Amino acid sequence: MNEKLSFACDYAKGAHPNIMKRLAETNMMKTAGYGLDEISESARNRIRKACGCEKAAVEFLVGGTQTNAVMIGAMLRSYQGVIAAETGHISVHEAGAIEAGGHKVLALPHRSGKISAEDVEKYLEDYYSDESHEHMVMPGMVYLSHPTEYGTLYTGEELLALRKTCDKYRISLYIDGARLAYALSSPANDVTLPLLAQVCDAFYIGGTKCGALFGEAVVVPDPDRIPHLFTIIKQHGALLAKGRLLGIQFDELFRDDLYMKIGEAAVRAADRIRKALRQKGYRLCFGSPTNQIFCIVENEDLKRLREKVDCEFWEKYDDGHTVIRFATDWGTTESETTALVDLL
Amino acid sequence: MNEKLSFACDYAKGAHPNIMKRLAETNMMKTAGYGLDEISESARNRIRKACGCEKAAVEFLVGGTQTNAVMIGAMLRSYQGVIAAETGHISVHEAGAIEAGGHKVLALPHRSGKISAEDVEKYLEDYYSDESHEHMVMPGMVYLSHPTEYGTLYTGEELLALRKTCDKYRISLYIDGARLAYALSSPANDVTLPLLAQVCDAFYIGGTKCGALFGEAVVVPDPDRIPHLFTIIKQHGALLAKGRLLGIQFDELFRDDLYMKIGEAAVRAADRIRKALRQKGYRLCFGSPTNQIFCIVENEDLKRLREKVDCEFWEKYDDGHTVIRFATDWGTTESETTALVDLL
Amino acid sequence: MNEKLSFACDYAKGAHPNIMKRLAETNMMKTAGYGLDEISESARNRIRKACGCEKAAVEFLVGGTQTNAVMIGAMLRSYQGVIAAETGHISVHEAGAIEAGGHKVLALPHRSGKISAEDVEKYLEDYYSDESHEHMVMPGMVYLSHPTEYGTLYTGEELLALRKTCDKYRISLYIDGARLAYALSSPANDVTLPLLAQVCDAFYIGGTKCGALFGEAVVVPDPDRIPHLFTIIKQHGALLAKGRLLGIQFDELFRDDLYMKIGEAAVRAADRIRKALRQKGYRLCFGSPTNQIFCIVENEDLKRLREKVDCEFWEKYDDGHTVIRFATDWGTTESETTALVDLL
Amino acid sequence: MNEKLSFACDYAKGAHPNIMKRLAETNMMKTAGYGLDEISESARNRIRKACGCEKAAVEFLVGGTQTNAVMIGAMLRSYQGVIAAETGHISVHEAGAIEAGGHKVLALPHRSGKISAEDVEKYLEDYYSDESHEHMVMPGMVYLSHPTEYGTLYTGEELLALRKTCDKYRISLYIDGARLAYALSSPANDVTLPLLAQVCDAFYIGGTKCGALFGEAVVVPDPDRIPHLFTIIKQHGALLAKGRLLGIQFDELFRDDLYMKIGEAAVRAADRIRKALRQKGYRLCFGSPTNQIFCIVENEDLKRLREKVDCEFWEKYDDGHTVIRFATDWGTTESETTALVDLL
Repeated sequence: MNEKLSFACDYAKGAHPNIMKRLAETNMMKTAGYGLDEISESARNRIRKACGCEKAAVEFLVGGTQTNAVMIGAMLRSYQGVIAAETGHISVHEAGAIEAGGHKVLALPHRSGKISAEDVEKYLEDYYSDESHEHMVMPGMVYLSHPTEYGTLYTGEELLALRKTCDKYRISLYIDGARLAYALSSPANDVTLPLLAQVCDAFYIGGTKCGALFGEAVVVPDPDRIPHLFTIIKQHGALLAKGRLLGIQFDELFRDDLYMKIGEAAVRAADRIRKALRQKGYRLCFGSPTNQIFCIVENEDLKRLREKVDCEFWEKYDDGHTVIRFATDWGTTESETTALVDLL
Repeated sequence: MNEKLSFACDYAKGAHPNIMKRLAETNMMKTAGYGLDEISESARNRIRKACGCEKAAVEFLVGGTQTNAVMIGAMLRSYQGVIAAETGHISVHEAGAIEAGGHKVLALPHRSGKISAEDVEKYLEDYYSDESHEHMVMPGMVYLSHPTEYGTLYTGEELLALRKTCDKYRISLYIDGARLAYALSSPANDVTLPLLAQVCDAFYIGGTKCGALFGEAVVVPDPDRIPHLFTIIKQHGALLAKGRLLGIQFDELFRDDLYMKIGEAAVRAADRIRKALRQKGYRLCFGSPTNQIFCIVENEDLKRLREKVDCEFWEKYDDGHTVIRFATDWGTTESETTALVDLL
Repeated sequence: MNEKLSFACDYAKGAHPNIMKRLAETNMMKTAGYGLDEISESARNRIRKACGCEKAAVEFLVGGTQTNAVMIGAMLRSYQGVIAAETGHISVHEAGAIEAGGHKVLALPHRSGKISAEDVEKYLEDYYSDESHEHMVMPGMVYLSHPTEYGTLYTGEELLALRKTCDKYRISLYIDGARLAYALSSPANDVTLPLLAQVCDAFYIGGTKCGALFGEAVVVPDPDRIPHLFTIIKQHGALLAKGRLLGIQFDELFRDDLYMKIGEAAVRAADRIRKALRQKGYRLCFGSPTNQIFCIVENEDLKRLREKVDCEFWEKYDDGHTVIRFATDWGTTESETTALVDLL
Repeated sequence: MNEKLSFACDYAKGAHPNIMKRLAETNMMKTAGYGLDEISESARNRIRKACGCEKAAVEFLVGGTQTNAVMIGAMLRSYQGVIAAETGHISVHEAGAIEAGGHKVLALPHRSGKISAEDVEKYLEDYYSDESHEHMVMPGMVYLSHPTEYGTLYTGEELLALRKTCDKYRISLYIDGARLAYALSSPANDVTLPLLAQVCDAFYIGGTKCGALFGEAVVVPDPDRIPHLFTIIKQHGALLAKGRLLGIQFDELFRDDLYMKIGEAAVRAADRIRKALRQKGYRLCFGSPTNQIFCIVENEDLKRLREKVDCEFWEKYDDGHTVIRFATDWGTTESETTALVDLL
C-alpha cells in the first residue's frame, strides 16, 4: 500500500512479532479486565525485576500524552506547575493537555533538548527569592525526557545531580521514556532502569515507539508516593477495559530482556544514516546518538527529497532552510537504510 | 489459564478472528499516524455508508470513558452541564471524568436505565422557569446510552421525541453506544444507524465490547457542529499514535455488515439464560432484551454460585439479597451457555 | 428609591454603622496589600480568640461561592468529591463552581436541609463495599451549612457525630457559615465558634449576610492541614488587593463580641413573622428557627402579596401552590416587621 | 499607623471621597442583589456613553486576576490558548489562574511590556504553517494590558494594527485596563475609551488601582459575542452579592468624567519623580509615561532607601543591582512627592 520509503516517524509499523504471536494465542482467553489479570501481573513483575525494585507500582497506559497528563496530574497539587524544557513534549506537542488539567508548564531554555540541575536550581532559587513568589505558580516537579525530543541523552551523573536539586527543594522528578529503548540500545547511554528507579518519583517505559502496538509502562518506585493511582487513571479516561492487551505486550517486551536490545537495529541504522549525511555534506543538528537524525536542508532540496522519502518537517531554520528529521525504529531493515543512504 | 465459567462482563476476550487476521497481515506496513492512513479512511467510509450519512465526521477513540469525556467536553460550553440518567455510566462509573473536565452531570431519575422526552422537557421547563436559573448550571446537552447500562432499549419513537425536546431548547443529543451491536442484534430493537445519525449531534459505535480489541467510533453527522475535534482529542490524551489499529478494527467490523450481526450469538445466549433463570424461579430485573441479564439472588446462593461462575455484583437489593449481572458476548458459545444453564 | 417593603433576602442593605465609620476613618491610610496589614492581623487575632484557637489560620475572602470553591479545591485531591445535601448551596446555586474546579458534588437526600452522621456513614460504607468503587469518585470531605439553606440548625451533638464519621473514614469536614450570625443569635442553637473549631478541618464565618458590606472569614484550626492557602486563593482570583477592607470589617464585627449578637434583631423579627403567619393560617415549612421564614402560599395569593412586598420564590410546591421565603437581617426594624405582619 | 513614606503600589489607600460619601448615603437602602439594582444600571449607562457604545454589555467584577480568569475563560473554547507578552500579568503574577481554567498562556517576547501586531502575526503564521499545528494549542485570543505592567502605552495605531491581525486570523482581542485611568491622564496617551470599544472584543476599566475601593468594569461592545456572561461570572465565584457596591463606585467614577482625570495627580507626581531620579543620576527603565517609575539601583543603595520609603522589588538586574518600582496613585499629594524627591 505504501511503497515510498518512509523514515518519518518511529510509530509507523505494528508490533514486534513476539507480541503479535502472543496476542493471537491468548485471543479467546477470558480474563479479568482493567489490568487485574495474571498476564499483566507477570509483566509487572518482570518490569519490577528489570528495575531492581520489587515494591514498585507498575501501571500500563495506552499513549504518551495520556501518560504524561495522568502522571503530572497525579504528582502535583492543584496549585503547582511542572518545570520542563521549552522543547519538552508537554510544552509544545500535547495540545495543552497539561494545562487542561489545570497546571502550568514552567518552560526553561534548553540545550539540545536538555535542562541541567543548574538550570533548575537557578529557577527555584529565583522563585523563592522573589518577594512576590506566592503570587506565582509554585514549581512542584521536574519533567525530563530520555532520550529527549532531540534524541539526546542525559548522563547518569546529570540525573543524579537533578535528583539532588529536587530533594533540596522537595519537588518530584518524572522522566518520560517514550523512546527509552533507543537510549538503552545506544552505546552513548549510561542510564539504566535501576538508575531511573533510583532517581525518579515516577517514570515511564515507552512501548508505542519501541516495539509495541501501543502502551507505556509507568513505574512508581515508592507506591505510597501516589495513592489511588488506579482511580486517577480511570478519571482521565485512561483505563483500558481489556487491560491484558497491555500486559501481554510488556510481558513479551520484558521476556528474556528483549526491551534492552530491541532498539539496536534502529540505532545502528541511524548511525549509518548520520555518517552518510555527513559524508554528503549535510549539516547535522543536536548530535543525537539514538534513533532520530536531525539535519538542515535547503528548501529546494527538501522538496525533491520528499518525493522519494517521507521525513518529518521539524522546524524552519531560516528563510531558505528547514530542519528535518529522519527516524528509524526497532524494525528498520538494512535494505531500507541502504535505499535511503543511496538517495541522499 | 482461566478454567472457571465466566459471564462477568463482555470485555473478557480479545477480538473477532477477522480483526486478528487483518492485524497480523498489516503488521509490518508503514502508514501515517494518528488515523490519517488509508485503512482508517476506508473504515470511515464504511461507517458513513452504514449510517447513510456521507458527510459525517468519524473519529476513532480507544475506550468508552475517554470517548464520553472527549465528546461531552467538545459539545458543551464551559458553563454548561449534561443531562443524564442517574444510572448513566457518566453519572456513576467514570470516576468523575466529566467533572474533571469542568462539567456537572445533571442526573435525572431513571426507569430501567432510561429517561424520557417528558423527563427532560420537565427538567428544562423547571430550569428556565426558576427565577434563579442563571445561578444554576445551564443544561447544554442530553446523554443517553443505547442499550442502557441495564441492557434496555429506547424505541425509535422515543429517540425522535427526545430529539424534538432538544431542538425546542436548542441543546445537543449524544448517545453512548458502547454495546450498540447488542441492540442491533436484538429482535426488540428498532433503532438503526441511520436513525441515530438523524437524531444525534454525535454518537459512538462501541467496539471494545462488540468484537474489537478496543476502540469506539464517534460519528458526528454534521461536522461543522464540532470544529477542531482532532485537537480536542489530542488535548484529552486520546489520540492513538498508531491510529490505523483502530481503522483496521472498524474496517473489519463494517466489512460485509459484520457489525450488524456480530451480537446475535450473545443475544441468543442471553435469551436462553433468561429463560432458564425464570424456569428455576429467579427474579429477573429490568426486562433487558440484549446481552446483559440481571437477577436478584439470595446472598447465600450468590456465594455458592460464584464458586462456579464469575458474575458481577451489581448492587445490594436488600439485606438478604443482591442484584447480579451475567453478560454474554459476541463469542459466547452454546456449550458455555449450556454449562451455565446447568449449574443455575 | 425602593419604597416597597422588602424581605426578599438578607443582603439587600449595606453594612453595620460601625463598619462604615471605620472604613471612613481609615480611608486615606496606606497599608500593605493582600491582607498583610495590621488591621487584618488584629481581626485575625480577634477571630482566633473567639474560636478559642490561637494557632488557627484565618483568611478573608469576598463571597460565599468563591469561598466554597477555594476551600473545597484546597481540601480535596484531584480525584476526590465532596459529600453534601442535595439542597446544599454548592449542589444547586453555585452555577457549577465546584465542578469547574474538577470535583463532583456527591449529593445525599436531605431532611430539612440537613444530612446526618448516619447518612454519611451509610454512603461511605456503601462506597467502600462496592466492588467497583475504584471506578467511582472517592469521597474526600463533607460539606455542611449552618444554618442550612432552609434556615435549620445542626445540634452540637450532631456535629460531633459527623466528625466521628469523618475521622473513621479519614475525610475532612467543612462548614459553610454564610448565615452563622443568625445561628449564634438563635435561642435554638447550641453550636459555638469553639465547637466549630473543634469539629471542622475548616469553616467560614459569614460576613456578607451578617452585617458586612461583603466578606467571609475562613478559619483553619490546624494550618498544616492546608499548606499554601494564600497561593490557592490567588489562583482562584479570590485575593483582594486592598485586603484591609476585609480586615476592617471583621475587626469591627469581632470587637466587643458584636458578631455574637448582631443577628438578634433578625431572629426576633423572624419569630414575630412566623407567629403572624401561623395565626393567619399559612402553612410554614422546615421549622427554621433563624432569620429565614418559609411558607406555602396559593399562587393567587402570591401574586397579590408580591405587589406589596418583595419576597423570594423558593420552589414550586404543586400546581396551585408555591413555597416562598421571607428573610430578615441584622438591620430589620420593628416598624418594617409590623408593616409586613399587617399586610399578611 | 503607617508613618513611613510609601510608594510601593497604587492600591495602598481606600477610595476617592466621592465614593465614600455615596456609600455612606446609600448604606441602608435595600436594593436587588447581583448588580440588578438601579444604581448599577446607571453606572452601566454612564460607561456605555463614555465608550460611545450604547449596546455594550457592562459587568462589574471585584478584582483584576478574577476578571482576567473570567473573561479569558468566557472568550476561549476549551482547546484554545491566549497569546500574551511573557511579562503580562496573566503570564507571571496570577498564580496560574488561567491554566487553572484549562488554558495555556502562549507567551511572546516583549518590548517594554508590549507585543506588536507583527509579533502576533508571525506567531500565528508559524502556528498555521507548522505541519503539526493540530497537536499544539490553538491560539484563540490576544491579551494586552494598557498601560502595560511596565507602565508603557500602546498607540491607537498599534491597537488598530493588532485588531487587523486578529480579524485576519479570526481571534479575539482583550485588553486589561487595570491602570487605565493613568493612561487616560497621561499626555503621551492617544487611546480613548471609544477606541477601546472599537478594537476590542472585551476590555476592562480598572477601578481598584484607580480610585475605587475595589472593582473592575468589563465592557463587551457586542454582547452577542459572549452569551451567558452572568452565569460564567457566578461559576467563577466572581458574582458579588451586594452588586450595587460596584455600581455605586463606577457611577461615581463616571459622574462628570471623573475617571478621565482621576489619574492626573499621579502622572504629575510620577513625572516629578522621574525628573528627580534622572537629575540624581539614577538609570530609569522602560520609559514609562504613566504612574509607575522603574529604576536600577545598587543593592547597597536599595537597602538604605527602603529604610525611609516603601518601594517595590521588581526584579534582579545583575548581581550588584536591582530594578525597583515606585508607584504613585490618584491620591498622591505634592508634599508626599516632595518628601520622596528630597530623600532620593
